[in-house]
Amino acid sequence: MDVDENALQEALNRAVMKARLNHEGALANYIPELAAVDPNNTSIAVTLKNGRTLSAGDAKKHVFTLQSVAKIIVLAGLLEEEGAERVISWTGMEPTGRAFASISQLEQSGPVPANPFVNSGAIALCNRIPGKQEAEKIEWLNRWTKRLFHDNLKINHEVYESEYKTGDRNRAIAYLMKSNGIIHGDVEETLRVYFTLCSYDATVIQASYLPLLLSTGGEDPQGRKVLKRDTCKYITAVMATCGLYDSSGAHLVRTGLPAKSGVSGLIVASALRIAGIAASSPRLDSKGTSIRGEIMLESLSKEMNWHFAIP
Amino acid sequence: MDVDENALQEALNRAVMKARLNHEGALANYIPELAAVDPNNTSIAVTLKNGRTLSAGDAKKHVFTLQSVAKIIVLAGLLEEEGAERVISWTGMEPTGRAFASISQLEQSGPVPANPFVNSGAIALCNRIPGKQEAEKIEWLNRWTKRLFHDNLKINHEVYESEYKTGDRNRAIAYLMKSNGIIHGDVEETLRVYFTLCSYDATVIQASYLPLLLSTGGEDPQGRKVLKRDTCKYITAVMATCGLYDSSGAHLVRTGLPAKSGVSGLIVASALRIAGIAASSPRLDSKGTSIRGEIMLESLSKEMNWHFAIP
Amino acid sequence: MDVDENALQEALNRAVMKARLNHEGALANYIPELAAVDPNNTSIAVTLKNGRTLSAGDAKKHVFTLQSVAKIIVLAGLLEEEGAERVISWTGMEPTGRAFASISQLEQSGPVPANPFVNSGAIALCNRIPGKQEAEKIEWLNRWTKRLFHDNLKINHEVYESEYKTGDRNRAIAYLMKSNGIIHGDVEETLRVYFTLCSYDATVIQASYLPLLLSTGGEDPQGRKVLKRDTCKYITAVMATCGLYDSSGAHLVRTGLPAKSGVSGLIVASALRIAGIAASSPRLDSKGTSIRGEIMLESLSKEMNWHFAIP
Amino acid sequence: MDVDENALQEALNRAVMKARLNHEGALANYIPELAAVDPNNTSIAVTLKNGRTLSAGDAKKHVFTLQSVAKIIVLAGLLEEEGAERVISWTGMEPTGRAFASISQLEQSGPVPANPFVNSGAIALCNRIPGKQEAEKIEWLNRWTKRLFHDNLKINHEVYESEYKTGDRNRAIAYLMKSNGIIHGDVEETLRVYFTLCSYDATVIQASYLPLLLSTGGEDPQGRKVLKRDTCKYITAVMATCGLYDSSGAHLVRTGLPAKSGVSGLIVASALRIAGIAASSPRLDSKGTSIRGEIMLESLSKEMNWHFAIP
Repeated sequence: MDVDENALQEALNRAVMKARLNHEGALANYIPELAAVDPNNTSIAVTLKNGRTLSAGDAKKHVFTLQSVAKIIVLAGLLEEEGAERVISWTGMEPTGRAFASISQLEQSGPVPANPFVNSGAIALCNRIPGKQEAEKIEWLNRWTKRLFHDNLKINHEVYESEYKTGDRNRAIAYLMKSNGIIHGDVEETLRVYFTLCSYDATVIQASYLPLLLSTGGEDPQGRKVLKRDTCKYITAVMATCGLYDSSGAHLVRTGLPAKSGVSGLIVASALRIAGIAASSPRLDSKGTSIRGEIMLESLSKEMNWHFAIP
Repeated sequence: MDVDENALQEALNRAVMKARLNHEGALANYIPELAAVDPNNTSIAVTLKNGRTLSAGDAKKHVFTLQSVAKIIVLAGLLEEEGAERVISWTGMEPTGRAFASISQLEQSGPVPANPFVNSGAIALCNRIPGKQEAEKIEWLNRWTKRLFHDNLKINHEVYESEYKTGDRNRAIAYLMKSNGIIHGDVEETLRVYFTLCSYDATVIQASYLPLLLSTGGEDPQGRKVLKRDTCKYITAVMATCGLYDSSGAHLVRTGLPAKSGVSGLIVASALRIAGIAASSPRLDSKGTSIRGEIMLESLSKEMNWHFAIP
Repeated sequence: MDVDENALQEALNRAVMKARLNHEGALANYIPELAAVDPNNTSIAVTLKNGRTLSAGDAKKHVFTLQSVAKIIVLAGLLEEEGAERVISWTGMEPTGRAFASISQLEQSGPVPANPFVNSGAIALCNRIPGKQEAEKIEWLNRWTKRLFHDNLKINHEVYESEYKTGDRNRAIAYLMKSNGIIHGDVEETLRVYFTLCSYDATVIQASYLPLLLSTGGEDPQGRKVLKRDTCKYITAVMATCGLYDSSGAHLVRTGLPAKSGVSGLIVASALRIAGIAASSPRLDSKGTSIRGEIMLESLSKEMNWHFAIP
Repeated sequence: MDVDENALQEALNRAVMKARLNHEGALANYIPELAAVDPNNTSIAVTLKNGRTLSAGDAKKHVFTLQSVAKIIVLAGLLEEEGAERVISWTGMEPTGRAFASISQLEQSGPVPANPFVNSGAIALCNRIPGKQEAEKIEWLNRWTKRLFHDNLKINHEVYESEYKTGDRNRAIAYLMKSNGIIHGDVEETLRVYFTLCSYDATVIQASYLPLLLSTGGEDPQGRKVLKRDTCKYITAVMATCGLYDSSGAHLVRTGLPAKSGVSGLIVASALRIAGIAASSPRLDSKGTSIRGEIMLESLSKEMNWHFAIP
């Protein structure tokens, strides 16, 4: 299915325009560095199957960390290298109906984390990254990040330090899993790997490449196989049900785009069989989702008719 | 996309064959009538866009009540007649991570029910069916049932009576919503409407028509518009995230088919843009899902390549 | 231990005076009739081992329903007639850390109610009152009420009707217990018995007799045995840990008086080995406890040195 | 009230005899060192107001760590030095209805811990011990321990190391409180203080001195004031409602003795105005309470008529 690129560019422009009318929401305040960004940055990009990327808003200058969007990286890498069966034994694939860092949910429904996109699940997966030393594990992350974004993303050390210092809720989650035998070895090392994962810098132009790969079943624009079809099925399905935590359901009804959000304000989404989308703006609602990001995705989905449930 | 009907028939036969190798699970025991059925009944049917229906197993003789699959009927009818905005004010659209009749979930995250497919949500919607008398509301149900299944389904009065007598957990849910101002009027009447809804008899051949409508965006095989596109988007998205309660996530990963289950052992599923599927067998897992039903859907999805996330 | 009655009278007067300085709290609003009382009524009475009753404030004119204080009646009657072992099989004796009408607590820690003083526990006990007809059960209640208060208390039919009409949360609790096999027979009848129990009218002068009996190990001022020592031990211990729901702990620290509260604003308390106390004023805190009632009890306990933990 | 010491000695002997008939329960298994003790050790001691201590069973040779019984030490010290108002701002005084190391309870009802006897509450109090260095805080503990047990208790370093290594659930609790601003400074240091607190070695003879002090309102056998009356009221009331976690209610009904349990199998209890009691045996029930310990306390309370609610 060919996309009319002129229509798409106009749809992107309108999406940004609509989003900028909204001034609700607040910056993530539990990570000091994230509270220091320009709240007005608003950008969106779409990478098509043919490899062309269209964008609108502050797409070129707006740089942010991936935060929880990066949870896809570790999930994809482990699915490819270790297989779904092992990954499923490390973390489930059910939505929780709770917030992304809920400890009650983990205690009451665990000990295995509910899904790879809540913090507990992603930390548990970081604990399984191959490598004897922390440096090897970071190297593994860099390798997979390059493969999935077709670019070298840099680690934002200020954000990393900020998260490491203030990440005590994630520390609590990790130690609870350690006490239940779900994670092994040095908890602090696993947390450092996890906080590194969250700290890759990107623009929406860079970020839209990963969801493109998912939307094509793993093929890059040159027709090379980057991910297995089964990996894409798995990740896309988990994005559909768990990608926005306890607003995943409303998001899928409104946009029909399986997606993953991060508290930096980024949302990546897959327009199945067509394109990868990245929308970003830092003001968040109470569930940790970018308000302008959702406005842009809903607008784009409606104009381009990209809702997954529609012919 | 045309479907090879010979290949499909073989895929259906194999799906039934595989399912019959499994003897796990137990009949729903909290509704006495449901515990009295033949546990070996196993059937599947697919209705294609061209209107042809293929089936396998005990498709012709295996009759069961719709149970929670019928929750789609009241949701569809109200979306069409009252609009999404009102429906959303009556019930949310988020998965819960809990069982279908969880009262804790309702008390802790309510007062509005989480989604239309948990019992609280469907009871709240039954409370909103237009009509002054109970008879009018049942008539409304009959009308929508006929429209969505293209057939007159009969109410199984033995099952209805059995549910009405033993439905005290649903009664508890309804009175809690009454005390919170979520439902209005006579609670017992609303429950009678709800239990009636659950008690329609069908075969998989009949049951596969509704998901076909959803898969086409609301068009019947003759090209007539039966449901609005927005109704189909809404229902399909909620099926994807909430259709199998707290195994919705795993189901979507494995089959890629947005679906809705019922404790009679029926699961209906939408192969997007292609077909409606109904699979049924009464032995259930601990989440209330038909074990053989899931085996059939997973087998069919893989053989026909019907996972939603794949080109 | 003899009590200086002059000092006591002065302590009562001062307790009322202090209480009247406080204007916080709100009338119970979920029972319309309870929201219609004079919010300024404030009364306290103490009945001593010698049978003399001292009082202060509006003690003579301030009439209120017993509400949850009456839960002691059914507990005492069943302990005497059926024995502790059976009562323990019907309801536990642990504090819950939750509100008095929490359904989550019942669902998650049940099916047996946590203790006889949360609503579920008292309803479960009402379900066990001997008698074939509702009238016999009400008669049983009247008999025990007369015995424990040494007086005929009248049922306030306006309050009863008001509770019966609006008691849907209690109805939800009862139906959940019915669905779990904890209560048997006609749920509505059990609820009528329960709402009758809550609807006895009394003054603090009348209400202070029951805790006197508990404080003496069951002897009335004439030295007649009205309750077994084991019954008094059981009830007093449960009052100490569960009598004020999720503020029982703070109450015991502050006053040292095992007590039971009701949403009409009454609190009865046992000064061990010395006296029975009843304090009442209708404005409640968020846990359903009379604010002025607590002020009076704390003041009295301190002045008279009645904290249970002190020689 | 004078105690017949011959009768008491016989009651102690019988209590041990009855306890030894029971072989249920299991050693605490989450602290390896605690799982290495002789499961048959069974001892009880009572220290009377006159200072005499009677004992039975393995009282002289049976040494164990105080574990959670030591939570009284930090509570008493802070109440004396900082006052009740500050202590209340650091930790509540309500029973939870949950297990002693429940994180859900802390997350859902927090951020302030429910009471000083669940792990979160005791850790929060350890965080408030005065002193700039860890060594000063340990010194503070040693000083208070000596004062409350009238003896120098030694720290069992094997148990301490074992707890420190495996204490990841407590670590999770501490980091959750750190993330909520409830504890300050170095979490690991606070945990080391907490684990030290739990690791004091004692016999029942030594352990029965602390509850004696509580039972007298703070006076030692020589009539010297060791604790304020208000400190004793506070601690005794919290023991009554929270001392055995989610079996505090049943314990108070059965024994009438405000008490505190530890997972080493020790229970200390206050016979109000009369004596301090310590009973110990390592096999625990599912709530972490010594089964033989409870049998001994119940037997002793009945024989000596020490239930708090009885004249």
